[in-house]
Amino acid sequence: MKRSVIIVAGGSGQRMGAQMPKQFLLLAGMPVLMHAIRQFHCFDPGMPLVVALPPAHISTWTQLCAEHRFTIPHTVTAGGGTRFDSVKKALHALPGTDWIAVHDGVRPLVSPALIARCFETALKHGAAVPVIPLSNSLRMLEAGGNHSVLRENYCIVQTPQIFRARWLKNAYRAPCCPSFTDDASVVEAAGYKIALAEGSRENIKITEPVDLKIAELLVPGFCS
Amino acid sequence: MKRSVIIVAGGSGQRMGAQMPKQFLLLAGMPVLMHAIRQFHCFDPGMPLVVALPPAHISTWTQLCAEHRFTIPHTVTAGGGTRFDSVKKALHALPGTDWIAVHDGVRPLVSPALIARCFETALKHGAAVPVIPLSNSLRMLEAGGNHSVLRENYCIVQTPQIFRARWLKNAYRAPCCPSFTDDASVVEAAGYKIALAEGSRENIKITEPVDLKIAELLVPGFCS
Repeated sequence: MKRSVIIVAGGSGQRMGAQMPKQFLLLAGMPVLMHAIRQFHCFDPGMPLVVALPPAHISTWTQLCAEHRFTIPHTVTAGGGTRFDSVKKALHALPGTDWIAVHDGVRPLVSPALIARCFETALKHGAAVPVIPLSNSLRMLEAGGNHSVLRENYCIVQTPQIFRARWLKNAYRAPCCPSFTDDASVVEAAGYKIALAEGSRENIKITEPVDLKIAELLVPGFCS
Repeated sequence: MKRSVIIVAGGSGQRMGAQMPKQFLLLAGMPVLMHAIRQFHCFDPGMPLVVALPPAHISTWTQLCAEHRFTIPHTVTAGGGTRFDSVKKALHALPGTDWIAVHDGVRPLVSPALIARCFETALKHGAAVPVIPLSNSLRMLEAGGNHSVLRENYCIVQTPQIFRARWLKNAYRAPCCPSFTDDASVVEAAGYKIALAEGSRENIKITEPVDLKIAELLVPGFCS
């Protein structure tokens, strides 16, 4: 059983108000993306790691790896214009694998235990995503108004999202579509069912400057 | 135009793994609930403040107020068994008011600017809640499975939720119902429309121990 991971780091970081894309910002002295890579390497040091980066950021990344003496082996692929295109292109860098995890490069705090849970669920069901419950009320927006919905009927989706390689590759043959908000939605549109694994509140996504501060607070020791 | 606020602090804090209910835990040296009260007092020092507390916690609160020399005037009401009952009982403590804000006692970082925005929107439309966009994908749970939904069609609801007093009182005449997840859902069920104001990511709800750490990071100076 061969498993691989695609770490998607395609953002330009506009929302962060920083010049550096958010995946390159320092968290506990190391770029956010390196944390994400390291966690997968800790989970399974033999697992092929593909990092999808915007072409314009590849040289910066190479420099950062040298500066931080980052030696975890990984393949860099040039991302496309959208997340969908980036994953599609990265899939070509993974010809012989049975299971593919897709992870957000801006989720540096994913734990090896969470990755293990997602793989276990995926192995049973073919596709799995980590989810957490909503801790706030939810409203649905609609033309001309909005209405309350039961938050118990929804869950928040994180990454890594893990799929049988054949399912994921089949699914990514479709043209991109606005309803593709993550990889699970692409795979689901191809007719496959998605199983749910237990996510973690600590597995946050670095979206705004405050998230980086929160991550500093939560960042664990190596391989924890 | 008379405005009042009900601050609901009914939780027993079971999820926090602490003996103290979460509204009493210290944030920057002061119980969480005092922060919430202080922010409303900063917004409008003349506004009547009603704090709904579980009967079993009232003596602890009195002690905490003495210890922390907390002198912001407020009325304490004994909460009911559910949030719905607590608000319903607190409404009796506010006979002559035009507008009522209902706020979670475990949202200590609400800013006076956010309170002002919600009052402005409520004054225009009769009922307003602060909302923020979802930064993660969302799935809907259903019998036998789950499916992806477009997160752009949803928003996360915070407090204070502000209502024309007559609307809120009318709405709370209904019997409690499982779909009442917040005050807006109660008011909506009575046939009124809810307008949306811009919330704030900093206006977090203290639900788990990690939230208190995050709040420590975000806690602003007095009246900021």
